[in-house]
Amino acid sequence: MQQAPILLTPGPLTTSLATRTAMLTDWGSWDGSFNALTASVCADLLSIANGKTHHCCIPLQGSGTFAVEAALGTLVPRTGKILVLENGAYGQRMSKIARAIGRDLAVLSWPDGVAVDAQAVKAKLQSDPTITQIGLIHCETATGLLNPLPEIARIANDAGCELIVDAMSSFGALDIDVEALNLCAVIAASGKCLEGVPGMGFVIAKTAAIALAHGNSPSLALDLADQFEYLQRTGQWRFTPPTHVVAALRAALDQYLAEGGRATRLARYISNAKVLIERLKSAGLKLFLNEKLQAPIILTFHAPAHPDYQFAAFYAAMRERGFVLYPGKLTQIETFRVGCIGAIDSAQLEQAAHAIIDVLTQLNWLTPAAEKNHA
Amino acid sequence: MQQAPILLTPGPLTTSLATRTAMLTDWGSWDGSFNALTASVCADLLSIANGKTHHCCIPLQGSGTFAVEAALGTLVPRTGKILVLENGAYGQRMSKIARAIGRDLAVLSWPDGVAVDAQAVKAKLQSDPTITQIGLIHCETATGLLNPLPEIARIANDAGCELIVDAMSSFGALDIDVEALNLCAVIAASGKCLEGVPGMGFVIAKTAAIALAHGNSPSLALDLADQFEYLQRTGQWRFTPPTHVVAALRAALDQYLAEGGRATRLARYISNAKVLIERLKSAGLKLFLNEKLQAPIILTFHAPAHPDYQFAAFYAAMRERGFVLYPGKLTQIETFRVGCIGAIDSAQLEQAAHAIIDVLTQLNWLTPAAEKNHA
Repeated sequence: MQQAPILLTPGPLTTSLATRTAMLTDWGSWDGSFNALTASVCADLLSIANGKTHHCCIPLQGSGTFAVEAALGTLVPRTGKILVLENGAYGQRMSKIARAIGRDLAVLSWPDGVAVDAQAVKAKLQSDPTITQIGLIHCETATGLLNPLPEIARIANDAGCELIVDAMSSFGALDIDVEALNLCAVIAASGKCLEGVPGMGFVIAKTAAIALAHGNSPSLALDLADQFEYLQRTGQWRFTPPTHVVAALRAALDQYLAEGGRATRLARYISNAKVLIERLKSAGLKLFLNEKLQAPIILTFHAPAHPDYQFAAFYAAMRERGFVLYPGKLTQIETFRVGCIGAIDSAQLEQAAHAIIDVLTQLNWLTPAAEKNHA
Repeated sequence: MQQAPILLTPGPLTTSLATRTAMLTDWGSWDGSFNALTASVCADLLSIANGKTHHCCIPLQGSGTFAVEAALGTLVPRTGKILVLENGAYGQRMSKIARAIGRDLAVLSWPDGVAVDAQAVKAKLQSDPTITQIGLIHCETATGLLNPLPEIARIANDAGCELIVDAMSSFGALDIDVEALNLCAVIAASGKCLEGVPGMGFVIAKTAAIALAHGNSPSLALDLADQFEYLQRTGQWRFTPPTHVVAALRAALDQYLAEGGRATRLARYISNAKVLIERLKSAGLKLFLNEKLQAPIILTFHAPAHPDYQFAAFYAAMRERGFVLYPGKLTQIETFRVGCIGAIDSAQLEQAAHAIIDVLTQLNWLTPAAEKNHA
């Protein structure tokens, strides 16, 4: 086994050895034991979202983006119209998907770092009654911003629109109650806050909406109505499942539940984020977001103001010390990102914060004021 | 690690411990070491297909079917027309994909167990000059039949049509020379004859065809032109890759090359198939296919003629003995299937054959003649 660095990224992330060793067994995709594995994973995912009453969990092969495309293609009718709320790269990607699959699209957008504004959404819905679905990114991974899900859900419900939530980087850590918020669909993946390995997405969808969605999808592979019908009828995935990834997710969920579930997971991530923000702030590094908007999932920091700063050199020096950082995803401002999620705790984040400060100090990229604060 | 049964299935299949332990490391999807892993896997896949000169290898998240849909959506132009050659469930699935994504479609079909007839294809191409692409299943997993790829390639080339080959269950074992046959695309996956774990497909496509394919795809996630462009520009997958699955495929390819490559792999599968056919034949169990059409990948046997025969009970008894069989996929005739592929050799197939005969004898489902042959 290669000595792996700690991944301070939004996924794939550092997983526990127990999760990885779950991949040491081969499974027959037609076998009853694997069907039971799939069923138990889906049942737990549904519980986490409080979706046991009116929702179902549909697993899908591929990355989270495949599941987003599947949700839009299956749940937005061919004659429907989706309003996508954009304040970052993942919102933009949702719009791109809607365009690619030929769905009628409206877009409201805000700059990076500005939360989706519920009143603007309300006004838009009033001015365009042809909108049938709304697409929202819960935690916008491009910046780490947490959008106001409950407020948007209320407005969607008042307007009679269905809300589809990309919860890729929040599911399992932040609170998402599909029943209380009457959400049409929540989309996430195996390799994020659930701390599995990447290779499987899933959609928690209203069972009634899926039942009405046959024939909507412009794809066979990404047809969630077909996937769910087959799963219900046979207990199996329609096409070859990523068996080892599913087994790893089962092991990750066992650890999630043993650790105390969502509240404990969130508390660990909050503690991770707090350590990082405090340490880097004391060294003069500024968080990009207003702290009130910051989810404890992935943090975006302004790059040091030094004119010689280059992310590639910073990355390489951190990699040398055993930490993998994540590049910024803003087009106008130089930033870098640090993930708080994965099988890591505040001790690792302390080590990472010290490494960041040491590396930037050695490279002479911290401002004198920042160095003074640090010393 | 759970004690796993031997998988006698067309994939997921039994993998080596070396392949599975390659999944014990986490990888950052943005990291240079993972980019190098992806590049080396793609280079080896291209070499296996003899595609280094005019082809490229495009990996894709998801199961093999996702890669088939991606290839059709990307390579059949919106104004094109694909002729799908059906002689089993996977040919039918290719037609279903073409219909789902809205491509103009022509179909030629043959019964299960009858090879695609090159002369009929030639006549069809002459009668319909609007056909731009042909879709062929190399080894039809529904029966295990090997279709005449070189003959169909010759006819496609003579007619100026592009040939797209679903080589899911043959790639890595049977000979496929994309350069010599001038193939437009060959589609396969990680978890078949290459003996990786499932979760990743790939398409070996003509680089010139991909360059002309921008804007064809009715999907973002399944757009191979976009995937390849991004991969070339950044060294990375567009969306989160199944990192552990890619690492397992790298390990599986290392073993494939060390074992002696395609010829040695094929020889092992031929030996596996031979043992199984001989043993079961001597017990009175009949191969469904004419032996000349049988690929040494997956074998379809007629179920015992006994009126009480039930696959579920047969499966359960074999499972109890540590072997996972595969159900038949023919609608009219009762059959069962036994896979010859995976990290298994003729010793395991001997064990499997004996277990099959013992189980069917104990269940009293073998005919007296067959029992005599066996005794």
